[in-house]
Amino acid sequence: MGFLDSVSPRAIAASALLLGSLAQGVLAAPSPKADWVRKGPGGSNGYFKKKAHDHIRRAVDGGRRAAELESCAETTTTTITAPKPNPWAPLTNDETAAVVAWLFAQADLNLTVVENATSWDNSIVLVEAMWPNKTDAINYLDADGPAPTKYAHVLLNNRATEDAHYADILVGPLPVDNATTSWSPLAFPYNKGSGGTVRNLDADQDALYEEWIYPIAASISDITLDLWNGTAMGLDNDTLSIWSIDPLWQDDGRITMWNTFWNLPTGEQDDVTLLPLGLYFRSDVTGRDPSQWKFEGWLYNDIFYETTEDFRAAYWSEGFVKNGPNVDGDWARTGQAGKVEPLDLLPPPVQVAPAGSRYGVDVEQKYVEWMGFSFYIGFNRDSGMQLYDIRYQGERVLYELGLQEALAHYAGIDPMQSGTAYLDTFYGFGPYAFELVPGYDCPTHATYLNSSFYADETCRTHVDSICLFEFEADHPIQRHSTGKIISITKNTYFVVRYVATVGNYDYTFSYSFFLDGSMAVEVRASGYIQSAFFANNQDYGYHIHDSLSGSMHDHVLGFKADFDVLGTSNSLELVTFVPHTTTYSWSKGKPRNTMKIDRKFIENEDEGRFNWGANAATQVIVVNENATNKYGEYRGYRILPYTGTAHLTVKDSSNLNNAARWAEYDIQVTKQKDTEHRSTHPLNSQDTFDPPIDFAKFFDGECLRDEDLVLWLNLGMHHIPHTGDLPNTVQTTAHSGIQFTPHNYFLGDQSRRSVNQVQISYGEGEPAVVETFGQFDASSENATCKPSYEPVSVNLEDYVGDIVVRKFPYDPNNPFAETDSI
Amino acid sequence: MGFLDSVSPRAIAASALLLGSLAQGVLAAPSPKADWVRKGPGGSNGYFKKKAHDHIRRAVDGGRRAAELESCAETTTTTITAPKPNPWAPLTNDETAAVVAWLFAQADLNLTVVENATSWDNSIVLVEAMWPNKTDAINYLDADGPAPTKYAHVLLNNRATEDAHYADILVGPLPVDNATTSWSPLAFPYNKGSGGTVRNLDADQDALYEEWIYPIAASISDITLDLWNGTAMGLDNDTLSIWSIDPLWQDDGRITMWNTFWNLPTGEQDDVTLLPLGLYFRSDVTGRDPSQWKFEGWLYNDIFYETTEDFRAAYWSEGFVKNGPNVDGDWARTGQAGKVEPLDLLPPPVQVAPAGSRYGVDVEQKYVEWMGFSFYIGFNRDSGMQLYDIRYQGERVLYELGLQEALAHYAGIDPMQSGTAYLDTFYGFGPYAFELVPGYDCPTHATYLNSSFYADETCRTHVDSICLFEFEADHPIQRHSTGKIISITKNTYFVVRYVATVGNYDYTFSYSFFLDGSMAVEVRASGYIQSAFFANNQDYGYHIHDSLSGSMHDHVLGFKADFDVLGTSNSLELVTFVPHTTTYSWSKGKPRNTMKIDRKFIENEDEGRFNWGANAATQVIVVNENATNKYGEYRGYRILPYTGTAHLTVKDSSNLNNAARWAEYDIQVTKQKDTEHRSTHPLNSQDTFDPPIDFAKFFDGECLRDEDLVLWLNLGMHHIPHTGDLPNTVQTTAHSGIQFTPHNYFLGDQSRRSVNQVQISYGEGEPAVVETFGQFDASSENATCKPSYEPVSVNLEDYVGDIVVRKFPYDPNNPFAETDSI
Repeated sequence: MGFLDSVSPRAIAASALLLGSLAQGVLAAPSPKADWVRKGPGGSNGYFKKKAHDHIRRAVDGGRRAAELESCAETTTTTITAPKPNPWAPLTNDETAAVVAWLFAQADLNLTVVENATSWDNSIVLVEAMWPNKTDAINYLDADGPAPTKYAHVLLNNRATEDAHYADILVGPLPVDNATTSWSPLAFPYNKGSGGTVRNLDADQDALYEEWIYPIAASISDITLDLWNGTAMGLDNDTLSIWSIDPLWQDDGRITMWNTFWNLPTGEQDDVTLLPLGLYFRSDVTGRDPSQWKFEGWLYNDIFYETTEDFRAAYWSEGFVKNGPNVDGDWARTGQAGKVEPLDLLPPPVQVAPAGSRYGVDVEQKYVEWMGFSFYIGFNRDSGMQLYDIRYQGERVLYELGLQEALAHYAGIDPMQSGTAYLDTFYGFGPYAFELVPGYDCPTHATYLNSSFYADETCRTHVDSICLFEFEADHPIQRHSTGKIISITKNTYFVVRYVATVGNYDYTFSYSFFLDGSMAVEVRASGYIQSAFFANNQDYGYHIHDSLSGSMHDHVLGFKADFDVLGTSNSLELVTFVPHTTTYSWSKGKPRNTMKIDRKFIENEDEGRFNWGANAATQVIVVNENATNKYGEYRGYRILPYTGTAHLTVKDSSNLNNAARWAEYDIQVTKQKDTEHRSTHPLNSQDTFDPPIDFAKFFDGECLRDEDLVLWLNLGMHHIPHTGDLPNTVQTTAHSGIQFTPHNYFLGDQSRRSVNQVQISYGEGEPAVVETFGQFDASSENATCKPSYEPVSVNLEDYVGDIVVRKFPYDPNNPFAETDSI
Repeated sequence: MGFLDSVSPRAIAASALLLGSLAQGVLAAPSPKADWVRKGPGGSNGYFKKKAHDHIRRAVDGGRRAAELESCAETTTTTITAPKPNPWAPLTNDETAAVVAWLFAQADLNLTVVENATSWDNSIVLVEAMWPNKTDAINYLDADGPAPTKYAHVLLNNRATEDAHYADILVGPLPVDNATTSWSPLAFPYNKGSGGTVRNLDADQDALYEEWIYPIAASISDITLDLWNGTAMGLDNDTLSIWSIDPLWQDDGRITMWNTFWNLPTGEQDDVTLLPLGLYFRSDVTGRDPSQWKFEGWLYNDIFYETTEDFRAAYWSEGFVKNGPNVDGDWARTGQAGKVEPLDLLPPPVQVAPAGSRYGVDVEQKYVEWMGFSFYIGFNRDSGMQLYDIRYQGERVLYELGLQEALAHYAGIDPMQSGTAYLDTFYGFGPYAFELVPGYDCPTHATYLNSSFYADETCRTHVDSICLFEFEADHPIQRHSTGKIISITKNTYFVVRYVATVGNYDYTFSYSFFLDGSMAVEVRASGYIQSAFFANNQDYGYHIHDSLSGSMHDHVLGFKADFDVLGTSNSLELVTFVPHTTTYSWSKGKPRNTMKIDRKFIENEDEGRFNWGANAATQVIVVNENATNKYGEYRGYRILPYTGTAHLTVKDSSNLNNAARWAEYDIQVTKQKDTEHRSTHPLNSQDTFDPPIDFAKFFDGECLRDEDLVLWLNLGMHHIPHTGDLPNTVQTTAHSGIQFTPHNYFLGDQSRRSVNQVQISYGEGEPAVVETFGQFDASSENATCKPSYEPVSVNLEDYVGDIVVRKFPYDPNNPFAETDSI
């Protein structure tokens, strides 16, 4: 069993998902290249096409022109070559297999393959490429230095011991060579000081359910049958499910677990998180010896019973208040429902790309270029897609940009909601980035890329799980009109997107790029809420269905933004609008009520944690104090809220303790260090008082003027689900975003470069004079092709899910050995 | 001369615009119906087509099906009939003409036509439909009451007196009948207590320039020639322009004016606001007798000179510091500039409407329906487009929604910037809503409507100045995926938009409607900044060009949102996430750090002015306490920030005094009253200490529980222009918006009604099973038509500007009498 096997609702939902996705996608007839590989990275849908590069270059250069083509899409290149191989690329299939084989050959590691591992065996959780240190990567990218030496980052689940623990180790250098390859603890990026290990609170999952949870549930089957006509005993005909809190409580050296009952869905949808039943029980599950675990009592209707006897006696006594259950039904299911609007039966507007793609992609290296922007894409198990070396007009703006962690902190009258504070990298974003739905998640004209992750001696691939596309906004980027002349420019932007469904919730992550050099980071959320039983919960949510409360919770999503504005010597300037009363040389000696700007720098890390100012009055700008423009102003990039942000409401959370200090402020800035690479660790939940990474320890007073700065930026939303969240939360309002925008960086607006603007001089009763700046004109005799406005055709029956490549035992000629469990 | 003739930069720019737009658009050959009228309200571009209504109804009803048509667009209806004639409709041409004629017949009004009026004559500024009182309108709409009696709202500029003043009057009832029609002061919507009048500080504009400003400028022509090689003497060959502050200073009973010099543009663009020159002079212009006006001194480089002699002596003395000018050039002009990205020469993505419009419009009544939403459109001179009687699924949600006022408050080291605080309704939004550019401002498939306004005995029409369109977002409204099944729904939304360019700045106002019953109000801003001379301005802006400072300013745009949630008995609930430490029945006696929600109501108007809470922790919800859903929760609509908001930084502004108290908070709520119809008056600038409407007076402690509530919501942006604002501010970051969303209003998400969703069951190596819920399938044998993906063709050479109809003298058979001045 891997480390996904907590007993939390999210773990259960997640496991169900993985099992579900695993059961398909394995090719019946193994071959050296799977069908989707042979067809190219766009898969069989055909919406990613390799097109000839030369035609567009010719058209652009104004040189030789091809004969008129039927469709511009045919002339468009999507294939480019990255300037250097991607230093954040994943391990190759062969590299991963070699590392796994090497690990199993190390007697001191004492490893068992996951499929055969008991709770007293050691196993491998993760094999991934180790991220390069920034110094090495920059030396490689900018100074023709060597490619960073490749290592594997491996996570071991060491359970063959009383002190079950996880261990991060490094294996390398790669390629594996028995003479030179070795392993060592991976400790430097973590500040726990434990040499790269953390205890495993979930080591005895199997025993927990078989020997503890189900027997306890069975002991009150008279009550569960009476209340809900159901039982949870670990049998195939169970109609109830039992989950625990996440993280487990870790006070006073004891490990406390709360469990609760949920009705199981009766359809094929996973709406279990809408079916809580309101009965809870507490256990002390400290240590690895189940005989030492202690059952501590029942809770129903906010009344605590210390023993099962007490609870049973009360339950069957007169006057006991029984609350109704939550039962699956159409109300909890997605799909069409309700009155159809007649005009909705016509096809809605759709965006088409008449010239195919106007961006370049090196699919092999996951390198992308669009209108002066360029970047590499990385992908990891913990936090999914990351962008690296983001440049605009050739200058790096960000070394790294990506999600670190997503927190969902609940509260409620009951211990289940009160005790839940998911740290989603525990489950991982990488494994849940499913295939996207063309025409729904992204336009059909998007380019789709695959993503892969390691699990249980296999490499799994989700086809078409990252999309890249251009989109025309519904409004221009620039306009100015008078009674005589209008100037207006199209607002075409570029998006890189993936969606991760970590259990009940679908997070859509979008990175957008704009013609003026701006960027945006956005998260939208949909999917099923995790709800609460309604009883007594009125201070924590609304009553939204029969016995259901929309459980209040905070979403906080932490992003790392490692800015390099014209190099790594950066400072963070705060520029604030402040009311101001003063007397001017010209104000007749009278004070005037007006305003001015206050400018200050964040001097050091003691000032490095703060929130967006009231009334949006403070601008936050990463500047290079040594790179002033010709007018003496600092060149910089401004960071600003876009579609709302939030940080954690709870102060010093009893669930999280030191495990998510990163969520406490909107903006946090540190000096870049290879030892502070991530704000959190996926196993922070295992030791909340002393987690592998305590973000608060990053703040130790270091100077932040003229330094390499990393900004840790939180997106988020305070969510009190209401009836409109049934069956799913909608993305109209469930969104959060920030923007980065050039600030005194260039001498003028860069969207002026676009030819997709028009200037109209009009009036005097004459036909208007229209200047189109050389933009494409299909009717021109110089046009090399005809735009095609047909949307790309997509057959959703080709939706496939993931591909699994077994790494151990590994047969490179037959990699698609079937697996059927994790 | 109308009341647009202040000497502020905005007034000058605005006058130039109107003159420009006036010079064209007048038809050479008058005819009973203008060309654009005969061709229909969409004008000659052909992108608004009347299509047969019946086809779609048949297709929808599943009854008789037409033979397959070549294009779905042919089957789409856009024509519907409003349930009742629009009670917010403008006056008809005949009504306006009759009112104007009647006014000129009233000897006591002593009116002169604008063209002939001197500064000592009375004239008509405005003739518009008077808005109906809400009680009357609701009685008409909901209870089959009579249509509200129609009156004309007239604004007079009474200058035939020492006490020049503006007077709002009512004329009616309409139609005009000499026996029954009369005029009366319009006083009840204003709280100045002056009987509907306010002084006119601009009465002597002509004298001001001819007798005062130009002679003063001429008196230092030696200096202006030496500094800038230019003069401003009111001559055709002037190369300089002179503007004043707006509002004028009104302290101590004196009227103080500051003037400054600007270089005139040398091209056809109106980039004058980028060309300040840094020399200022002060005058006391109290009263109507120019002989009593006083010149009070010069300011240059932050040194004040009390007399011209002092200034000249200093200027020609050794060591006088001369700052360079700002000179027009390509840096200040829009249009394409800079390196072209090769792929930008291909046509970018574009949105197409394969079925034409999927919404209904009653063009005559300006009534619109889309996917369960319906509303009427109104339009007025002061604040442009307003929406009325917005309903969703037949229930009114908002009685009125629209802009009240836009404030641009500057600050700076100099009196020009420090003294500027534009209240844009003074210039009016209606007159500056120019023709939109299809394919840029709105999609080519949008429906375009005209808008009209009164000016100088004419009715002017801007064709195609309001657009309506559906748009597919780049992301779904709902999704949930597992490893086995995906449910996902398209996010198609509907937009009503217009753009008003009030001088240098273009405001794009968008009202959006979503499938879940949500709405959004958004403003985006582009155009030329008003800049400052750079000298000594470092505490108020960045140095962005040769001698240019990006002058800091606040944009605050006030909207009225008259909510009627299930009737007019509403309350405003605040629901706040708060940190919470408490001991639970189950927490072993230990306190836990968690959170909860605090719920409170705004009890009365004393609590009615507040800001968005820190950390977005407070939800603001208009609820009906008497309309609970089946679970006992209040049904309501939540108001939330969308793309950022702002209120005014300046406290008790010396420029504005009591003229814009509405800008002081984010959210303000009052009890609806016909006497508090608007938050401001377009002439508030004329008497800032005692303006026609002082919004702060609305707050007099009235109860706000179970009352008819009006929310006054501010959008805005704190703007410190940087180099990226040259030549124009871009809309990537210059945006502000709020949303309204159903909150416990329905029992589930209303986007479930859409058929444009899909559910995919996949896995097990089998082809995915795709459920499409009856959505349009062009390949189906039941399809009645083929979608057309070609974008609507638009010829921008048809761009025309406005149409002018003379109202006095009025010849209904020859309405298009040419006019050439205002």
